[in-house]
Amino acid sequence: MRAARLYSYDEHMNIDLVVEDRPVPQVSRPGDVIVRVGAAGLCRTDLHIIEGVWKDIQDPQRTLLPYILGHENAGWVEDVGPGVTSVKRGDAVICHPLRTCGVCLGCRRGEDMYCESSSFPGLNSDGGFAEYLLTNERALIKLNPNVAPMEVAPLADAGITAYRVAKKAARQLMPGQYCVVLGVGGLGHVALQSLHELCGARTIAVDRSPAARKLAKDLGAHHVLDGGDNVVQEVKELTRGGAHAVIDFVGELGAEQISWQMLRQGGTHYIVGYGGEVHVPTVHMVISEIAIAGSLVGNYTELVELMELNAEGRVKLHAQQYALKDINTAIRDFKNRQIVGRGVIVP
Amino acid sequence: MRAARLYSYDEHMNIDLVVEDRPVPQVSRPGDVIVRVGAAGLCRTDLHIIEGVWKDIQDPQRTLLPYILGHENAGWVEDVGPGVTSVKRGDAVICHPLRTCGVCLGCRRGEDMYCESSSFPGLNSDGGFAEYLLTNERALIKLNPNVAPMEVAPLADAGITAYRVAKKAARQLMPGQYCVVLGVGGLGHVALQSLHELCGARTIAVDRSPAARKLAKDLGAHHVLDGGDNVVQEVKELTRGGAHAVIDFVGELGAEQISWQMLRQGGTHYIVGYGGEVHVPTVHMVISEIAIAGSLVGNYTELVELMELNAEGRVKLHAQQYALKDINTAIRDFKNRQIVGRGVIVP
Amino acid sequence: MRAARLYSYDEHMNIDLVVEDRPVPQVSRPGDVIVRVGAAGLCRTDLHIIEGVWKDIQDPQRTLLPYILGHENAGWVEDVGPGVTSVKRGDAVICHPLRTCGVCLGCRRGEDMYCESSSFPGLNSDGGFAEYLLTNERALIKLNPNVAPMEVAPLADAGITAYRVAKKAARQLMPGQYCVVLGVGGLGHVALQSLHELCGARTIAVDRSPAARKLAKDLGAHHVLDGGDNVVQEVKELTRGGAHAVIDFVGELGAEQISWQMLRQGGTHYIVGYGGEVHVPTVHMVISEIAIAGSLVGNYTELVELMELNAEGRVKLHAQQYALKDINTAIRDFKNRQIVGRGVIVP
Amino acid sequence: MRAARLYSYDEHMNIDLVVEDRPVPQVSRPGDVIVRVGAAGLCRTDLHIIEGVWKDIQDPQRTLLPYILGHENAGWVEDVGPGVTSVKRGDAVICHPLRTCGVCLGCRRGEDMYCESSSFPGLNSDGGFAEYLLTNERALIKLNPNVAPMEVAPLADAGITAYRVAKKAARQLMPGQYCVVLGVGGLGHVALQSLHELCGARTIAVDRSPAARKLAKDLGAHHVLDGGDNVVQEVKELTRGGAHAVIDFVGELGAEQISWQMLRQGGTHYIVGYGGEVHVPTVHMVISEIAIAGSLVGNYTELVELMELNAEGRVKLHAQQYALKDINTAIRDFKNRQIVGRGVIVP
Repeated sequence: MRAARLYSYDEHMNIDLVVEDRPVPQVSRPGDVIVRVGAAGLCRTDLHIIEGVWKDIQDPQRTLLPYILGHENAGWVEDVGPGVTSVKRGDAVICHPLRTCGVCLGCRRGEDMYCESSSFPGLNSDGGFAEYLLTNERALIKLNPNVAPMEVAPLADAGITAYRVAKKAARQLMPGQYCVVLGVGGLGHVALQSLHELCGARTIAVDRSPAARKLAKDLGAHHVLDGGDNVVQEVKELTRGGAHAVIDFVGELGAEQISWQMLRQGGTHYIVGYGGEVHVPTVHMVISEIAIAGSLVGNYTELVELMELNAEGRVKLHAQQYALKDINTAIRDFKNRQIVGRGVIVP
Repeated sequence: MRAARLYSYDEHMNIDLVVEDRPVPQVSRPGDVIVRVGAAGLCRTDLHIIEGVWKDIQDPQRTLLPYILGHENAGWVEDVGPGVTSVKRGDAVICHPLRTCGVCLGCRRGEDMYCESSSFPGLNSDGGFAEYLLTNERALIKLNPNVAPMEVAPLADAGITAYRVAKKAARQLMPGQYCVVLGVGGLGHVALQSLHELCGARTIAVDRSPAARKLAKDLGAHHVLDGGDNVVQEVKELTRGGAHAVIDFVGELGAEQISWQMLRQGGTHYIVGYGGEVHVPTVHMVISEIAIAGSLVGNYTELVELMELNAEGRVKLHAQQYALKDINTAIRDFKNRQIVGRGVIVP
Repeated sequence: MRAARLYSYDEHMNIDLVVEDRPVPQVSRPGDVIVRVGAAGLCRTDLHIIEGVWKDIQDPQRTLLPYILGHENAGWVEDVGPGVTSVKRGDAVICHPLRTCGVCLGCRRGEDMYCESSSFPGLNSDGGFAEYLLTNERALIKLNPNVAPMEVAPLADAGITAYRVAKKAARQLMPGQYCVVLGVGGLGHVALQSLHELCGARTIAVDRSPAARKLAKDLGAHHVLDGGDNVVQEVKELTRGGAHAVIDFVGELGAEQISWQMLRQGGTHYIVGYGGEVHVPTVHMVISEIAIAGSLVGNYTELVELMELNAEGRVKLHAQQYALKDINTAIRDFKNRQIVGRGVIVP
Repeated sequence: MRAARLYSYDEHMNIDLVVEDRPVPQVSRPGDVIVRVGAAGLCRTDLHIIEGVWKDIQDPQRTLLPYILGHENAGWVEDVGPGVTSVKRGDAVICHPLRTCGVCLGCRRGEDMYCESSSFPGLNSDGGFAEYLLTNERALIKLNPNVAPMEVAPLADAGITAYRVAKKAARQLMPGQYCVVLGVGGLGHVALQSLHELCGARTIAVDRSPAARKLAKDLGAHHVLDGGDNVVQEVKELTRGGAHAVIDFVGELGAEQISWQMLRQGGTHYIVGYGGEVHVPTVHMVISEIAIAGSLVGNYTELVELMELNAEGRVKLHAQQYALKDINTAIRDFKNRQIVGRGVIVP
């Protein structure tokens, strides 16, 4: 099969993925499933991987390269191991990004991200920028009949991440209260839609890009701000005292420090984007009784829920397609912010 | 002032309220507030009070009559006691139906309905079918500037009751799951709108009246059923195994018995309407692990939340106005199901 | 191997299990595990199975008999299928009663009891009154080193059932509040201990047997009542208005009707025992805003938690041993209430 | 009456409170209550107040001095305003530290600490180091008959603060999981006892003082550590991967930085002590999906719950008494760590 492999890390990204022939992966364990890839989303994490940001975590022994990137995958079941009962050849599926064990306590509590022996195709094993992908039964969700793999692949990771954090925030948010969404990109625009579906609170979208602000307005954000120097003060005035929740999809460049300052007493700052460092005095944490909480991808059941909202047309995702052979063009376009919505690789 | 008083109970309702002159109520305790009534909703409970259904609970000593009915009140603050700090003369307000003490444990937990020494104007003391009403500061919510008392009075009781139960159900309901709303009348149509705002689940509205079914469809119910003999089977098929929640706004005439049969394992049957009796085998409760839960009016903070959704136009209420002098016409129209939406008395 | 099989149902239980030679079960699917049985608890459900109470549910096609009873099992891993990774031959284990699929939504949410394709060894397939038992990897919890199968087998079903309902109640119960435990037998005495560990509320144990009342007192119940005619009134006085929760381990003979009458406003009646029928007016459900909730066995993770409390000596279980060949004596003793604590069959 | 007043702030605490005659406070508003002080706890915050740490928050206009300190008060009702219904002269009471309004949304949700117009006697108005104290009805909890003001005054603030955070942690902690308590002083030893009552998790107490470690052991902490350089590693080993919760009662001197490093994936670091600053990379927050959450004093209902546990002897507090005239000795002893348990001033 054709596949795009990374051969070395490069801080400056002066490097191409190599599109070449590889053997098709084979079933070897009872729960294995081979998926014929229909589409694979291109994620900012892919850029960070190429830069080597993640190499100490994903590749501590430096034995991974060369390997196939791509962790937002959807397609059709091609082959299944002898223990597989819930899917069969030909089923259209989306892949939860983790391949989990199903027997550890994390898995048994439904917390897939806490699986003690998971693997993460596209990060620490071969991923979906290829014609075929090896994953397992537990990662698969059958698509609703009206949904095609091309339309939903990025929901597998970008979508679920936005949905999980929106669901967490929604549980705390009552009608009349306010949730700030910082960054209305690939994740933020899914979070906005999810918040509107999951709770009756008002949303305040913040983004420096006019196009992102227009998108936020079109999606029904109750207020849209441009993220200028006075944004903390603007939020405090709009909300008469501070937001009840702030979801930070940026996590660097100062966003991580203004987020918790926008909160009112008892509020929560959710961190999804990363790169920066939060500095906060303990006395402020106590007097304001705020919380700062990381959020990590999402559970299988959360992806199921998101797929239902998507199938009903209540949470949508815009995508721009590239052929597998053009993957390096896609990466450059992404880097240069020339992709509208999410880039999707179609083998 | 003019006021409509009940002079005796009559099982067959062959009786009129007497519209007559009464002294305006006066402030006597520090937290007292006199409200100039802008509108007072007419509720099915008013019919039951006239029939004497509630007399053992509201009037155990038979010392209440004659008294003024009306427990869904909105208007303007006319006078306040010396302890009142949060409202002043002229403020437009809606009245939470209970006058609570604020110091018992129920009140301190925010559970106004569990107040150990509340009174309930319109039920066990003079209510709002009059020009002025005596209540207390804790009952009052200031209206948003764009909202008039005439438009919202029934939210004080019908609205809050529907909102509270919808909020309870919404906490359990995930996208892709199903909630049945049994009875799309004054409460049911608020519950439908609230569910759509508070969670991403699908709604199934059930009503025998074509007009109610049309309303449900207009409000965005995902499925609408006519409540015929096969309704349990229809729900089980639609939901592939049973609903995750059923909200029963009827509570009699058999609805109370079909509700829990519509549930899947782990589901909850919420009871709001009353009159009938639930009969359920313990072995069914256990094997299906279902719950059956009553729901009672709502808390002050829930009315605040509902008023926010209403002010944003997300939960609306249709009403038909009657002058106070025509209150007996309104009662007859209500009894004969000739009121579209909710009847509202305007003094 | 030796095994005790049921050959026919008999309403009057004038029938013996037949202890006879059977082939040892073999691994056939990737997740299969053969457990060498160390002990198997004798449960009241076993008596009901023999009486035929469950035959329409467990054996609708009447193809089950003859089969091996026993659904509270602990022992040592004897053999494992090719997909098993978390246990190996020789590991001491306790068996969650269900053999679940791990891929349906119920399983993925951690709600093992809602598995859409589970089997229940001892109920609808061969169980543990034998030298060897076939179950699967997902059912197994490794025992702490200081714990032997003989001491814990009944925790697999009686224990987990009591723990789950105690955990549900504990989430609602605050210090100073009251929980009634109706029936201090095999389940009730585990529930009492669990409540004391999981929350700061006070417990009121109710049982007609003096021995059970003594046990309740020894376990630290805050109040112990004899369940006479005035028990509802006694609870209301002790609690100054009603209990916040009632856990009914009887579920018949009138207990199911007095339970909800003991509650205060907002309280919950948990049903675990079964046989009777609850009759409750909808108006009472609403005015008192009570809930009535069934509870069914428990999840794998709940059994994990219970085993931790047990390993620390915080929740204990008394048992009386019988050899497999004496199983019919054990059943007769159980029926005649001559077993102290729980009867355990040791092959 | 005699009262101890602060006349100026001094960073080095080279200053005495002045014990002098002051007029007895009088009732002026409907909800006012005068409490004859039985005892008033001495809190580290009192030292910080004297040092001037809080002056910008408690005394922004610099108009407060001279004033009476003391915010952990218990005693007997002396006089009540005309709106007071729930207490009467002679009732023994403990005082929630805040005097809340009862009508703002914070109060209505039961979140007393979020009251929008509270005052804090002892911080921003006269407190309890005096014979009489002015507070309001909403602050008062009647003592159980077997409890004397002298025994419980510090529960009003130190106790409730420890209880609230323990209750928050307990809601997340399952049997078999681990909670670290960092600092076993006046608050930490109440938190330990509360955790043992509210959940079935294991506790790990950390303190550099041998006396504190002995106290922790006596109170049943499952593990006790001395807080040396390897404490993060020790916790990770004990817990096989990290604690599920860490409660930091120190909040400075490095504790604030090691706390979140002790957590496992999904864990929460609760901040109660203050003084330092948390620095944490956003990427760590995300990958570990941890939360860092401040906790602030506690609600009225939480103090009610704590008083119930205390009345039953399940959560106790050791105290050392000083006469009001010896308050400066008490302060010096406290500063020099010569008080065993909590210092209590008895007028």
